[in-house]
Amino acid sequence: MAQSDVLEHRPDDESDNACIQEEAPRTIHFDVFTLFPPMLSGALSESILARAQKKGILHVTLHNIRDYATDRHHTCDGYPYGGGGGMVMRPEPVVRAVETVLSRPQGWRLPDGGDRSELPAWNADESPLLPRSTPTILLTPQGRRFDQGVAAELSMHGRLALVCGRYEGVDERIRTQLITDELSIGDFVLSGGEFAALAIIDAVTRMLPGVLGHESGAMYDSFSDGLSGLLEGPQYTRPTAFREEAVPEVLVSGHHANVEQWRREQSLLRTLQRRPELLVQATEAGHLTKEDRQFLSSRGWEAPIDS
Amino acid sequence: MAQSDVLEHRPDDESDNACIQEEAPRTIHFDVFTLFPPMLSGALSESILARAQKKGILHVTLHNIRDYATDRHHTCDGYPYGGGGGMVMRPEPVVRAVETVLSRPQGWRLPDGGDRSELPAWNADESPLLPRSTPTILLTPQGRRFDQGVAAELSMHGRLALVCGRYEGVDERIRTQLITDELSIGDFVLSGGEFAALAIIDAVTRMLPGVLGHESGAMYDSFSDGLSGLLEGPQYTRPTAFREEAVPEVLVSGHHANVEQWRREQSLLRTLQRRPELLVQATEAGHLTKEDRQFLSSRGWEAPIDS
Repeated sequence: MAQSDVLEHRPDDESDNACIQEEAPRTIHFDVFTLFPPMLSGALSESILARAQKKGILHVTLHNIRDYATDRHHTCDGYPYGGGGGMVMRPEPVVRAVETVLSRPQGWRLPDGGDRSELPAWNADESPLLPRSTPTILLTPQGRRFDQGVAAELSMHGRLALVCGRYEGVDERIRTQLITDELSIGDFVLSGGEFAALAIIDAVTRMLPGVLGHESGAMYDSFSDGLSGLLEGPQYTRPTAFREEAVPEVLVSGHHANVEQWRREQSLLRTLQRRPELLVQATEAGHLTKEDRQFLSSRGWEAPIDS
Repeated sequence: MAQSDVLEHRPDDESDNACIQEEAPRTIHFDVFTLFPPMLSGALSESILARAQKKGILHVTLHNIRDYATDRHHTCDGYPYGGGGGMVMRPEPVVRAVETVLSRPQGWRLPDGGDRSELPAWNADESPLLPRSTPTILLTPQGRRFDQGVAAELSMHGRLALVCGRYEGVDERIRTQLITDELSIGDFVLSGGEFAALAIIDAVTRMLPGVLGHESGAMYDSFSDGLSGLLEGPQYTRPTAFREEAVPEVLVSGHHANVEQWRREQSLLRTLQRRPELLVQATEAGHLTKEDRQFLSSRGWEAPIDS
């Protein structure tokens, strides 16, 4: 590892962002740290994520935190100090796992079925040099909210570490000594970060060039730039009539400009009906045209006062 | 099926909520409709969800939508009318799958490896009677936002159907003819609803009595009633010092009331630092005590004007 790529790991170093690559890389590598690798392995072996791995765009290495617990019983949790229900993840196995992996080239993992003697040495009292360009992200309901903008931000990194919390929480010193970012996929509580990790890997990967089978796909997803951060409107495919409900005539008219206008209006309308706060954001971002605003007004929308 | 339990299926029937069971049931059954069952099967076989199934509290039946496509190639998608990139899920296979399964007792599924002749008859032109107490939920970024409150709401049902959208979207008539609710786990786009389904199954299941190994667990999760909708504060377990960072003295003091006060303050503080808008909600819900508000004020918080 070149010396210029490393620094002493300081979680409070705000300058980490300076190392985000300016162009999206052609590939992305996730190191996922979990107590339950099978919660992810099957899910990653299907559909678009499987294809992205086969194409060499996505790489995921799963690391079992338990392999890094050195006591006889591979203990990874403990009772919370101060009492209370549930168990808390202990700091050493998590910190040891992440530091061991991130100080090695991407793709490295402990040999399968290796015994304890193959575990590389690790200094419990001192943090090693870690690549500053690799975010070490804890998945926790207390993190900042993951959304399409954060997905775009993460997609600029070549390598990311995702740490899946478990039990009722993780020892606070995992945060202070190791973690550089915390993400939550929403205001609900999961039994662990594994399903959040899957969602993040999926949302980030589909933004990389070559992952979707067509050029325009991710560009016109809900919340994307192509849709001005709005919701996608209705879509139709065969048959032309299902239970007497026909495809809207404009879509079979062959009139391209009318189709585009209809789609834009449907997208505005659906956003107005379901998520009006997104219209405020779109207005503030300057994403709505005069025609957009006129159409919305005709449907009862009141534009934000300062627009 | 008793006649009183069914009605003609009308997605716009607002009275469905009247059939939510008042007491949480001892068990919950999810029918999940997906093109990729292996994206869920491994994930459901680990940890808390595996234990909940073993205990008979959680039941999940995975249904492959492709088994319900009756053409020779099992076609489930089609080009969008009006053009554009990507493919759209066709209405018949999805509607046929859900109507076939939901009009039968919970736990029913197509026999493994069955040939086409075992597919029950289905009327493409008419909706069958379906149990009105079973929400049929489409997972889509255009849905209402799933959160801890929605999880509590869903946990009151005995049976739920989760429909995993795929491709660039689903034919609109799946919504109008079949779906009774639409949920999104966040403002980001996944390749399909599968990972959202996993998150929802997890968040809902951990609310059921007997799923967590201790009584107080879910009650004091972030966003839960026990925490007044706030974020959880720091947790500590062994060792007492890690990289010279010690467990806070109050937690090893043995003074229960002080521990409780410290935890409450830490929860308030973390919420103030990371998600101040949750404090506004907690204030409006009357969840903050006078002491809470005084503590927050001492840390620079400005209470909402009308409180």
